[in-house]
Amino acid sequence: MTYQALTEQTIIDYVRSRPALERILPPDAPLTAKEVGDGNLNMVYIVQRTDDPARSVIVKQALPYLRILGESWSLTRERMRFETQALLQYNQLTPGLAPQIYDVDDAMSLVVMENLDQHLIMRKALVARQRLPHFADHISTFMAHNLFFTSDLYLTGLAKKTLQAQYNNPHLNKIQEDFVFTNPLMASPENNWNPLVDDEVQKVRTNGALKIAAAEMKASYMTHAQALIHSDLHTGSIMLNATDTRVIDPEFAFFGPMGFDVGAVLENLILNCLSHYGHTDDPAVRAEYQAYLLAMVRDVWQQFAAKFEALWIDNNTGELAPPQYWNWPGGDQAFAEFRRRYILDILRDSAGHGGCKMLRRMMGVVSVWDIASIADPAKRAIAERKAIRIGARWLLEHQQVTSIDDLISIVRTEMNTEMVRDD
Amino acid sequence: MTYQALTEQTIIDYVRSRPALERILPPDAPLTAKEVGDGNLNMVYIVQRTDDPARSVIVKQALPYLRILGESWSLTRERMRFETQALLQYNQLTPGLAPQIYDVDDAMSLVVMENLDQHLIMRKALVARQRLPHFADHISTFMAHNLFFTSDLYLTGLAKKTLQAQYNNPHLNKIQEDFVFTNPLMASPENNWNPLVDDEVQKVRTNGALKIAAAEMKASYMTHAQALIHSDLHTGSIMLNATDTRVIDPEFAFFGPMGFDVGAVLENLILNCLSHYGHTDDPAVRAEYQAYLLAMVRDVWQQFAAKFEALWIDNNTGELAPPQYWNWPGGDQAFAEFRRRYILDILRDSAGHGGCKMLRRMMGVVSVWDIASIADPAKRAIAERKAIRIGARWLLEHQQVTSIDDLISIVRTEMNTEMVRDD
Repeated sequence: MTYQALTEQTIIDYVRSRPALERILPPDAPLTAKEVGDGNLNMVYIVQRTDDPARSVIVKQALPYLRILGESWSLTRERMRFETQALLQYNQLTPGLAPQIYDVDDAMSLVVMENLDQHLIMRKALVARQRLPHFADHISTFMAHNLFFTSDLYLTGLAKKTLQAQYNNPHLNKIQEDFVFTNPLMASPENNWNPLVDDEVQKVRTNGALKIAAAEMKASYMTHAQALIHSDLHTGSIMLNATDTRVIDPEFAFFGPMGFDVGAVLENLILNCLSHYGHTDDPAVRAEYQAYLLAMVRDVWQQFAAKFEALWIDNNTGELAPPQYWNWPGGDQAFAEFRRRYILDILRDSAGHGGCKMLRRMMGVVSVWDIASIADPAKRAIAERKAIRIGARWLLEHQQVTSIDDLISIVRTEMNTEMVRDD
Repeated sequence: MTYQALTEQTIIDYVRSRPALERILPPDAPLTAKEVGDGNLNMVYIVQRTDDPARSVIVKQALPYLRILGESWSLTRERMRFETQALLQYNQLTPGLAPQIYDVDDAMSLVVMENLDQHLIMRKALVARQRLPHFADHISTFMAHNLFFTSDLYLTGLAKKTLQAQYNNPHLNKIQEDFVFTNPLMASPENNWNPLVDDEVQKVRTNGALKIAAAEMKASYMTHAQALIHSDLHTGSIMLNATDTRVIDPEFAFFGPMGFDVGAVLENLILNCLSHYGHTDDPAVRAEYQAYLLAMVRDVWQQFAAKFEALWIDNNTGELAPPQYWNWPGGDQAFAEFRRRYILDILRDSAGHGGCKMLRRMMGVVSVWDIASIADPAKRAIAERKAIRIGARWLLEHQQVTSIDDLISIVRTEMNTEMVRDD
């Protein structure tokens, strides 16, 4: 089938023609279709059985129009390809932790996936101070498996480099390179920040040591092809409910540093933690949920580190250092020490990348809903000022970190510090 | 033209049919051809004017035969492609420091280049204790330009990643991954070493800290896509004479860590320096040339570092950290400090990779002619024992290095240490 843009009308026949969808949407079932996307680059349809509305799918199709300045059709198609192939990879490595993919049609630039209508975007759940008893377990499994099994610790060199070549994603990389690491830290017209924390923002932009550290993290992002990373793993890319967690939207996926993903999860939990200075005036309610989130930060890291190491011990089949490399009396201890150092480096990278990402959310073009949704600028500034100081310290001190408690300790210290404008 | 393997007979007509060669070998000039290659993967012909023998070219053509076990035609062709495109890149970035490329014929898997019949392989010149007054200048220019101009310091992200995608070279990578970093440091049937230094070899293979450090350097080689590196830049890949220096054989080229190239040059100078324990019995002659080589090591690094930094200051157009990123009072000093740290990291990487490569030459499948050509095993062992100790220290101490003098100091200390077997 050659490409044609589907409509709410034509999509019904299209769906009925796809053998892969027969099980969920049998050809004789009555169907309705509704477009629910924002329509910039893609159309997003819900196709649903009218006789059994719980049976539905999402159809996402790339649009061949130049709807955003400078965005060409080949880029739009390519973006869809990265998202689809990463989701397929997640389906394979961590089934149940990403939307299930039912069908892919490359000629139509289209993917059909599970409709997550029983799930909430994680940010919303966190701002509502929900308890998420499975999140640390689920996200640590997601990260440990997807990062380990696409790295040189598990794959042969040929397999890893062949997979990596399918994720040459320079246009999406450029968005992160500019808007995470560079533009927020210098004068750039799209930046926005709360005028009440302008003193803090200007201090960051003129802090030589911090600027050097951020440039070093950017170099890591650009050159450290450690594993297939999601590369935009914030709490808006996670949907969940009481029992279930799903990672969505991996269009930025490429081979980069593991710490960029781990750091994204940790820093988004911290930013949400700080947001409650604006979401409740009850100090006890606030303190309890903040403590809950800091415990979750520790859990996410500790479970990630433990699962990652266990996978490594059980599946040391990769190119990097095979079992026979460690085969001498004392080799077991050396291998254990190598793992310890490797995982500590992931933690340090997570702190550096997480710090950069906290800062960009406070002073770049992309704010964070958890905090941006605080209506009162003065209350918002409390969270923002602490976020900037914590982000700066995670970044500046990341090479001295020896445990997750060091990072949490920085958060606690800055949370407990009375902050005043120093102008 | 579809592929056909040329012969000494058919190559004459082929050369005459190529417009790019008219200037050197006019169609009416009388020509002779002679095959001079080892014929494993490629045929190498010298095609020469009989009326003016100084006018000649090298024609290198990939062979479609399975002459080496497991080597397929597509790999052989690909190998030729990496070599050709890297040589073309050198011609563009550092003309005069690689053989001039006259013609490329992809369909024929063939490249026509300058015949370097007035040049000597550098190892031979060093074993003959020649003075090489331009080498440090030439090789530092070669490395500074080719590394800087293919990095994120100069190129946009898109340009760098597009270039990088042309050098996806996993099969050749695997050779270095195995035979530089892994196999020499463990039991592997192809390893060979002088029984007289067996004690030293076994100590390396059971040194936990060293094995960890080597695995970390291998991870850097496999994941740190910093610039287009030659990836086999030893003194057998350099041809020179009194005035001229040429880098050859870049079939291993890919985007890797800059220190792998710089380290290769430095460690090969050190290995040659040590080889003179076996090449002369005159201590004064030996000491003088060894001091000359150690001064050359310092010159190569210092000129490389100075040229690399000057290029950066003059051409800071890359994706990593643009001029406006450093635009505040104090920004100049921060940029200078960032450059200092970046270049120090290259030195540390050079020490780590150089150390690994010294060790692999002493205990892996690929020895080094400078030392292997010493006939007397006892004399050879003197050089080998020192090489192992120096390589181990460069590797183990690479993160503490702060200047090239630290590396030279390690060499001098081990050269001045009376070495005995400790079994």
